[in-house]
This record gives sequence, structure tokens and C-alpha cells, in this order.
Amino acid sequence: MARRIIIVGAHAAGCDAAAAARLTDREAEIVMFTNERYAGYSRCGLPFVLGGHIKSFQDLVVFPPSYFKMNKIDLRLEANVTNIDVKSKTVEVQYKDGRVENLQYDSLIIATGARPAVPPIKGREKQGVFVLRTIDDGERIEQAIKESKSAVVIGAGLIGLELGVAFVERGLKTTVVELLPQILPAMLDKDVADFVQRDLERKGLRIITGRSVEEILGDDKVTGVAVSGEQIQADMVVIATGVRGNVELAQKAGLELGETKLIKVNMRMETSVKDVYACGDCVESINIITKRPVVCQLGTTAVRQARVAGTNAAGGYAIFPGVLGAAVTRLFDLEIGAVGLTEAFAQRAGIETVSMTLSGKTRAGYYPGALPIRVKLVVEKETEKIVGAQIVGGEGVAQRINALSLAILKEMTVKELAKAETCYAPPVSETWDPTILTAQALLKKLK
Amino acid sequence: MARRIIIVGAHAAGCDAAAAARLTDREAEIVMFTNERYAGYSRCGLPFVLGGHIKSFQDLVVFPPSYFKMNKIDLRLEANVTNIDVKSKTVEVQYKDGRVENLQYDSLIIATGARPAVPPIKGREKQGVFVLRTIDDGERIEQAIKESKSAVVIGAGLIGLELGVAFVERGLKTTVVELLPQILPAMLDKDVADFVQRDLERKGLRIITGRSVEEILGDDKVTGVAVSGEQIQADMVVIATGVRGNVELAQKAGLELGETKLIKVNMRMETSVKDVYACGDCVESINIITKRPVVCQLGTTAVRQARVAGTNAAGGYAIFPGVLGAAVTRLFDLEIGAVGLTEAFAQRAGIETVSMTLSGKTRAGYYPGALPIRVKLVVEKETEKIVGAQIVGGEGVAQRINALSLAILKEMTVKELAKAETCYAPPVSETWDPTILTAQALLKKLK
Repeated sequence: MARRIIIVGAHAAGCDAAAAARLTDREAEIVMFTNERYAGYSRCGLPFVLGGHIKSFQDLVVFPPSYFKMNKIDLRLEANVTNIDVKSKTVEVQYKDGRVENLQYDSLIIATGARPAVPPIKGREKQGVFVLRTIDDGERIEQAIKESKSAVVIGAGLIGLELGVAFVERGLKTTVVELLPQILPAMLDKDVADFVQRDLERKGLRIITGRSVEEILGDDKVTGVAVSGEQIQADMVVIATGVRGNVELAQKAGLELGETKLIKVNMRMETSVKDVYACGDCVESINIITKRPVVCQLGTTAVRQARVAGTNAAGGYAIFPGVLGAAVTRLFDLEIGAVGLTEAFAQRAGIETVSMTLSGKTRAGYYPGALPIRVKLVVEKETEKIVGAQIVGGEGVAQRINALSLAILKEMTVKELAKAETCYAPPVSETWDPTILTAQALLKKLK
Repeated sequence: MARRIIIVGAHAAGCDAAAAARLTDREAEIVMFTNERYAGYSRCGLPFVLGGHIKSFQDLVVFPPSYFKMNKIDLRLEANVTNIDVKSKTVEVQYKDGRVENLQYDSLIIATGARPAVPPIKGREKQGVFVLRTIDDGERIEQAIKESKSAVVIGAGLIGLELGVAFVERGLKTTVVELLPQILPAMLDKDVADFVQRDLERKGLRIITGRSVEEILGDDKVTGVAVSGEQIQADMVVIATGVRGNVELAQKAGLELGETKLIKVNMRMETSVKDVYACGDCVESINIITKRPVVCQLGTTAVRQARVAGTNAAGGYAIFPGVLGAAVTRLFDLEIGAVGLTEAFAQRAGIETVSMTLSGKTRAGYYPGALPIRVKLVVEKETEKIVGAQIVGGEGVAQRINALSLAILKEMTVKELAKAETCYAPPVSETWDPTILTAQALLKKLK
């Protein structure tokens, strides 16, 4: 009899897990559940639809219905998995029409993702206060943009800033408020974050750091926020203070959580219970450098974990090597990327580092269109291995981060990087790439 | 007494050698000679001035006169070094005014570069036949463009194609003729080269491969070329059939040449004679993968070798790790890059390989402006290490080549690359980067 694989969740993690499972076992019965109306779309694209760069939310669907059909994946939308019984190996599903079904599995993959973590700010229930996680959320915000002249975004993480920029691009007077003393605290050190902040401010986004939103103002409908005494007018407010993994179902089923309160998995993405796998925003990751548990809720992490979970759930063998946290975005015309440890994170992990920041150009300086770029490298002091990089620039940031991700993975020392070979042609690169020059400058500091 | 370092040549290699020497020894007397009117300019930029992308040839000067002054480098233009006596450690210099000087050195750096290798084509002495190596060459061609309606370029290497594209951009009816059966033979395998050729042809550049130019036609002034019977009309002809290292001076001085007929050096860039160093287009390189001598006449190779030569010549210690041949260019709006071994080169070196080519997008498929990109990976069969990559695409090729350059340097296997972590945001990259997907596809082929 064919193996039945049940997948809870049908976005980045769920869909890639299904794809991997199908490749591993052509005969398996694969059943996928999501409580949403849409499956297989790119959440990361939502702010860029709102900014007007992508035409419609439907464009974000990367796994269309035909995909599931062609790969014989039994996708069930608006279906809520309410319970998992790991003893009898069954899940309980509640459908939109109220019908409840119990379904047995041979392998189970939990890809329940995360939901916006909304802090208990006074007034958060008011009309005109939003979060952004789903297409439905996006459509609500899209509607609100059309009826608004001003907006406040609470939280200056990736989503918060992407939204703030989108609102400015749509003509709204926009303020982003961040409780911590810097923007992008999970991604950048303060010096780099401050550089980015100044750039965003020059382009028309107001940013307040180190202050908290005391209250969301207005009667039924939001009219503004109160920030340490100051009142900022706003026709709409989006709370983007991070996400919290959806681990309740797993927890109720008795699966072990890790120290980050996300689902604990081994290298095969298997949970503490046999035949139950998990991947994506709901699981704990291991940082490749520190070998310690971390929260790494990125799309790329989700899909890479999902392939491993899907392969193993279908009887194959694959392991997940851990994460470096490579992340990137574009805010206005500035690309911002990071990989590995920031100085601050390294310090908290007890790792002593030496760092160097250098500015350069993305192409030959004399070639029209060459754009500024800033590279910060973080090196572990004893081994002189590269452990982190933060890059901000007009172009080519993502691929430079990817190069440094490979360097970190292969435990490259800063000396090796300083001597590494890059390619050069005036229209596309510099003779000495800024990353190499930064390594050379850092090397002098180590002497 | 201060050490006297004499450098013969004042472009990429010479200038970077001088810079490194100065950093190593602040007191040294540094004397540089070039037989050209200009020093320290980027030859790689010449075709892009002719294409109209860079305003003037003067923009290519990256080491202005002030640089030499500030760093106390005694630069002597239009000065011809005619002899080296390694026994008495002197060089003989002939100046423009006819004056001859003998100058003693403590360390000598030979950075004599290369010159166009012009095959003995009948009619090559005619008016309207050019080569491109110097700003003077560039100015002559610039003048000819203004007086021409059509052009033929002989040779489809990097310079030949960059020139062919420049001529089309300037409105000339242009044909590139290549003797070998493919374009970019030193850089790409035939399958990738054919893909690039079709793209260039679609954009208006005529390319003839596998046929030789029998004669350059015309009385005094060129009127066309004869190619295997066909006559192609042309108001100007550029011969771009590669360069030949300027090794005569070194050879006359008794320095050993390698099997590639370029100057033989050790890892410190020291020639067979003590205190005589060499770098740039005139020296033989060692390929990092095959550990065998190769010709690698690239700007990036020159400057990296120069730093090593300059450091050692000034009493420091540095070694050059060898070359991978990372190269890139942009032809019209297409970026073409390569690093490491092509399949063909690997085969000639006795290395058995497995390769895979895959097409993808440079950004999220749904993001406007995502451009096609093609990645070819070459893997050594036994160790499954990546040994080569060829990438063609609309953007981000140079940085992907750089990433794979690091991967090859650190002996990354295709399996490691298939699992490597990349960063993702819809406006700048794909969830699965095309390089990673190619590695995954190649992996299946190895099973």
C-alpha cells in the first residue's frame, strides 16, 4: 500500500516539502492542508505588491493549482488541522463547512509557519490597524492605502521597513517606529543600520528608534499613535514587530520544543517523535558557526529545510546542514544584505571578533552607473575565519552576500579572501572587488 | 642607503607593483618606466570608450600623475628600457630625446605586458587596419569610426567581441570573423559560446566562425576582407587575435621562460634570477586546479601578481596562489562570465568531468525586471569538486562567478553547493539561486 504523507501548511515550507516527497516517492499519497484561501504563494512578495512593483497579489502564487494536480498532491484549502495524535498517527481536520475528519499518516510534516507577534499595545484592536502575513492581510492593507494619506509602521525589521518604503512609494506620509535603538536589529550592527537609516530618511521615510508606541489613538478608527509623548497622525497603522512560530499544534501533540520555543528537530528535520517532521518558520535552526539553536525564519531557510523534511518523510535520506542566516532586501534603490554573525550577535555568543567596514564602487569607478557599496566583514579573532558580512549598496549586494555565505560555509580565512580571485570588466565590476578590499584592510588590522 | 626598485611597465601590473612596494618600504626609491605617453590607465576600458559608454580615454586613467607624485614614485614616460644586465644589476634606458641612461637596481620588476599578436594576413599593412592595446590605438580607431560605415573585426575573443559590439553601437555594419569553430574559445565551451553568438547576432552583430580571413582587400586603404571566397566590405578592420607577452627584454637578460613561452616565476613572482621579479601579461601563471602552467593575461591576474611582486621586491613576504582565470564581460546587455576549467580545457588536461547547464531567472520570476540567466557547472568526476563555471545572463553574472571562484578555491563539492545557503528577496534574487539549482540538477546526474 502506498505511503501516506500528510503536510500541515501549504506555503514555502509545505510546498517544497511536498515537491521533495513526490520526487522521492512517486507512489506516495500526499495530502496537504492549509487554513488559508490560497496556497503556495510568496509571502516575501507581499510588501512589493503594496509598493506597486508587482501588479497583483495573484502574481505571488508560485505553486498554481495545476502544480498540485500534475504532481498528484491532494491540496485542501481552508482546512484547519486541529489535533495530531502521534500514538495512532492521525490528524484531525476541520473543514470550512464544519465537517471534521480523522486521517491517518505514515509520515507527517509540520509546516505550520508563524503568525505576526502583536505586542499588547493599547488600541491595537481599532479599525485601521493591520498586520501583514497573508494575501488577505495584503488586500486589506491595499484597500486602506487607497483611503489613507498617512501611515505608521510599528517595527523596523525587514517587513516593517519594506512596508514603510512601500507606503512612501504610494504617496503616504509614513513613520516607522522601532523600540530598539536601531533598525534591522536581527540583521545588522548599529553602525551599518544607522547608515541605512540615514539613507531611508533622505528618501522620505521618517524613522524613530529607541522609543515605544504607547498607544494607538482614535475612537473606533485609528487616527494616530502616541510615541513617548509625541502624537503622530496616521490614517492606518501596521504592526510589524516580528512573527511567532505556530507551535501550539506540535506542542499539544507532545513534540519537544527547543530553547528558542520553536519545534526541536534533528539534522533530518525529524521532531522528537518518529515519523513526524517539521520545517519552516515553526522550527528551531542550528547556526552553523556557533552550533547553537537560533530562530531563523527566512523563506530560503524554510524551503531548504522543507526539501530535507520531504525527502526523509518519503523514505529518502537527506540532512540539513544548519543556517547562516543569509538575508537581503531592497529599500527604495538600496540593497541591504547580511550573512553569518553580526558583531553584536558574536559578542553575545562569546565570540571575539575583529571587523572592518569599507566603501567602494560596484563597477569600475570611471564607468557611468557605478554605484556606491559598503562592505562590513566580521572575522573571528583567533582563527581569522570570516564569520559574518553586512553589505549595503546600489546593486550586486545579494550575490556578494551569497559569495560570502559560501566563504563562511567553507571556513575561509580573511587572508584567503584577501587573495581570492574575482572577475573584472568595467561595466560590471571593479578590478578589486569591494569585498576583497575590505578583507585586505581587515588583515592589516589583525597584524 | 635606500633600496632602489626599478619597474619596467606602468599599467595595471607596474602601478600595483609600485603601490605595494611603497606600502612595504616607505623609504625605497621607486623608478618606473613606460614607453607609452600615458601611464596607469585601464586597457580593459578601451572598447567601452569606443562604444560610447565612457566619455573619454582620459577617464580610463586610474593612477593620475598626482598619485605618483604623492607616493614618490619616479615615473618616466616614453622611456624605453632596452637592456637588463642581471650581473651588474643595471637597466639601460633610452629616452624620447635620444638620451641613454644606465641605472642600477636593488630589485627589478618586469611588467612589460603584452602586445597584439598579429597573424601574417595578407594586406595587414593597409591604411584602416588597426589593433587595440593603447590609448593611442584607441584614438586612431575612434577617428576611423567617424569616417566609416562598416567594419570587420578579426578574432572573437573578449576584445574582438567587445569591439564588434562597440562598432554596432556606433552604427557601423560590423562582422566578426573567428578562425576557430566558436567565439570566446579561451573562456567558454562551444555550447555556451553558441548561445552567446546567437544572442549577439540577434542584436545586429554578424559573426563568422570556423573560417579564416584570407586577405585584407583594398589598394592603400582597406575596402574589405576576403573570407573563404566571400568578400565582406569594410571601411576599417581591427585585428584582435590575442596578445603575445613582451618577453624579449627578459629573454635577452637570460631569464628563464616557461613552457608557455612567458617568463617563469616562483610563488613570490621571482624570476629565475635573484632580485628580478615579473608580473602581469608577460609572466606564466599556474592554474590552481591543474597545478600546471597556463597563460592568464587578465587585468585581475596582473594586479594580484603585482602586489606580490611589489611586496617581495621591497623586502616583504607575499606569495601568489595561482589563477582560476575568472573573467567577465558585457556584450550589449548580456553579461558573460567564466571561472576555472571549461569542459574542453579539462579534457585536454586529462580531467574527466560531468557538467550541467540550467536556465533560470535573476530575481523572483514574478518580479518585473527579472532577467534570464544560464549557468553551466563543470565538476570533476571522481572528487565531485566544482572545477568550472560559465554563466550568461542579464545581470548579476560577475558576482555569481566570484562566488563560484571562492567555491572552487575552497574545493567545494557540488553536493555542498547544492545545499549552500543563499539570500532571497523578490527584487534582487530567487528563492533558489540558479547556481544552486544547477548544482542540484548536476547532482542527480552523478547518481
